[in-house]
Amino acid sequence: MIHLQQQNEQALESLYRTKPALVGMGIAQEVIPDFHGKMLLHAGPPISWDRMSGPMRGAVMGACMYEGWASRPQEAAAICERGEIRFDPCHHHQAVGPMAGVVSPKMPVFILKNLQGDNHSYATMNEGLGQVLRMGSYQPSVIDHLRWMEQDLFPILQNAIDLLVEDKGPMLLKPIIAQALHMGDELHNRNKAGTSLFFRAIAPYLVQGSRSIDKIAQAFRFIDSNDHFFLNLGMAAAKVSLDILNNWEGSSLVRVMARNGTDFGIQIAGLGDQWFTCPAAQPDVLLFPGFTPEDVNPDIGDSAIMETYGVGGFALASAPAIVQFVGGTPREATEFTLEMYEICLGENPDYTMPPLNFRGTPTGIDLLKVVETAITPILDTGAACKEAGRGQVGAGIVRMPAQAFVNGAQAFVDRYLA
Amino acid sequence: MIHLQQQNEQALESLYRTKPALVGMGIAQEVIPDFHGKMLLHAGPPISWDRMSGPMRGAVMGACMYEGWASRPQEAAAICERGEIRFDPCHHHQAVGPMAGVVSPKMPVFILKNLQGDNHSYATMNEGLGQVLRMGSYQPSVIDHLRWMEQDLFPILQNAIDLLVEDKGPMLLKPIIAQALHMGDELHNRNKAGTSLFFRAIAPYLVQGSRSIDKIAQAFRFIDSNDHFFLNLGMAAAKVSLDILNNWEGSSLVRVMARNGTDFGIQIAGLGDQWFTCPAAQPDVLLFPGFTPEDVNPDIGDSAIMETYGVGGFALASAPAIVQFVGGTPREATEFTLEMYEICLGENPDYTMPPLNFRGTPTGIDLLKVVETAITPILDTGAACKEAGRGQVGAGIVRMPAQAFVNGAQAFVDRYLA
Repeated sequence: MIHLQQQNEQALESLYRTKPALVGMGIAQEVIPDFHGKMLLHAGPPISWDRMSGPMRGAVMGACMYEGWASRPQEAAAICERGEIRFDPCHHHQAVGPMAGVVSPKMPVFILKNLQGDNHSYATMNEGLGQVLRMGSYQPSVIDHLRWMEQDLFPILQNAIDLLVEDKGPMLLKPIIAQALHMGDELHNRNKAGTSLFFRAIAPYLVQGSRSIDKIAQAFRFIDSNDHFFLNLGMAAAKVSLDILNNWEGSSLVRVMARNGTDFGIQIAGLGDQWFTCPAAQPDVLLFPGFTPEDVNPDIGDSAIMETYGVGGFALASAPAIVQFVGGTPREATEFTLEMYEICLGENPDYTMPPLNFRGTPTGIDLLKVVETAITPILDTGAACKEAGRGQVGAGIVRMPAQAFVNGAQAFVDRYLA
Repeated sequence: MIHLQQQNEQALESLYRTKPALVGMGIAQEVIPDFHGKMLLHAGPPISWDRMSGPMRGAVMGACMYEGWASRPQEAAAICERGEIRFDPCHHHQAVGPMAGVVSPKMPVFILKNLQGDNHSYATMNEGLGQVLRMGSYQPSVIDHLRWMEQDLFPILQNAIDLLVEDKGPMLLKPIIAQALHMGDELHNRNKAGTSLFFRAIAPYLVQGSRSIDKIAQAFRFIDSNDHFFLNLGMAAAKVSLDILNNWEGSSLVRVMARNGTDFGIQIAGLGDQWFTCPAAQPDVLLFPGFTPEDVNPDIGDSAIMETYGVGGFALASAPAIVQFVGGTPREATEFTLEMYEICLGENPDYTMPPLNFRGTPTGIDLLKVVETAITPILDTGAACKEAGRGQVGAGIVRMPAQAFVNGAQAFVDRYLA
């Protein structure tokens, strides 16, 4: 018989030992496994076109136009309606995407590798702020910007990463994440330090990797304009680490939490590829001017991978300045972190929080503890407008709904404890 | 009769309103007022060669060789001994320098302006870590590095700053300092965020300001290698701000605190250019490997300008991660900040500390409060080896000695209250 506690302990130790590293970039359909044809990846658990929320539909329509499958929004909606596009969760392809999380075949992606194993993960480059695909916008300017990222930014960033890897080996992301936690980031909704540290690390290679002074300067301006640039790298680092928990017999650790804007879904280390879902939560949002609470779409995005990894909302104590963006007070932020220790099995020795006297971040959500304590994970997150094409409405705190955990726990008990 | 309290309040308000900005770079002897001939500027209150500590002598000797006034250390010491070099405090020339703080005529300097007035300040570029002039080292490698800074780094950085100023106007330093305080810097001994934010801001212009890809990449590597790069800019920002307190009739605010490695000295807003001095304190240092407490030179450097400005040791509560470098615990760091409110007249509305629920940093040291409470300012500081040429021994916390404040208070009472 399997010793369940031991399985969890060993799984958690393995998670601590992962070595997420940026090893290169590529075009999604050329590097992401099983990704071909008229297919789009999206955030969260599986969902069909008819059940997709506004921002998810908006992002899908934008991606159809970016790929050249449609030239107008109505046309894009029509081909989706007719079932011509295959939809699949990012998580089914070792990928993760913030908010709508749509990845289309031609998009450039970062390639990460766990150097302590041989698994990979993938994430697009963060598009920046304002009207962007991930928030459900699909105006021509959004598509033009995606093309600039593909045609101008990607080649020189890919070149830079290749030069860096050649010079120093893969770019280890754990030291950047650890340092960012000491600089007021929690790595989900505040990535100012992570972005800065990545910027510093890549700068000399970005210069050496291109002969066009103007394009280098433009790349620097773009990355500098977007304090969330590091988010997608952090998410891919979390994904490539947590993927070592896949099919970990007997472990009740949560290995995926994700939302598609309609449903919230989790996957459990010891329960294979099964999703346990329930309706997505409604975020409590500090609204941007001009929006009302009625505009806020239910919770959306794969970025919950950060909390699954023990940072983001779980590391709010290390990021007191974030309350200016997500609301609340620094004391409340600290209390959220302290609460999350109740449902986690460990404290990550590599990710410490100076304000808590260098205590490790609460890591390894135990499905059974969630159900026993009735404490569900909290996230800090961005929020999109319900209506496709209107973009971000704000940022805030959101507590995951309990039902998905209850469903998962029932299955876990049936499988291992009945 | 002057209303003393009102004078202090008005002086403090003016200090809050200053707008320190980087406006350009130049060569010290061409831009710093009254700086010519065989003259060296140094940290702290005035001092003659015979009373200089080891690290100050080492830096002076190195500067003589850098200038070509001597070719060997013994020769440099001999010309100092013979009185051929004129020494003057940086502070007498609107300049500031960390540690030994030696500025020689050929060194490139940043030029700052207070846009809310018309005064300027000056500081050299930070040399980096390891064996450096400011720590009293004068090996050939130290001099070679200073020449590289003058001949390679300076022209492209000057060009970049000119382009930035042309494009966006002077680089405002208050927003960088304010943001760095939200990213775990206290701006004296931790400048990782400030350096990162400066790096991001200057990067596009550094690229556009040079046609040599290799030199740009080298400049990026150098700045990235030195998390203290922003320190000298921060010090110059503090200096150009505090200088508006010069000759502020009736104000008991401390406008300068500085140490030359032998003496500690202060200047008071309402007491003109007079220095009040006493022997420098002995820092409590977290030692680098291979050094003992006996190796630590008494406190040295103009960097105490950061605490005079209300950051550095006064903002330790915002920089809990710094205890890994200077010793102690995050709780003790917070207590130091809370203690400093006791001797300050205000809280800077622009420099807030998220861990203290965005309370402003304790700002405006009141000479009379220091004497009344018997609480003297604390600094976090680097520490140099007593012996010239051996460099940095560690970093730590140091409390300023009381006698200089007692001497100042006596003069203030005689002048205004007798």
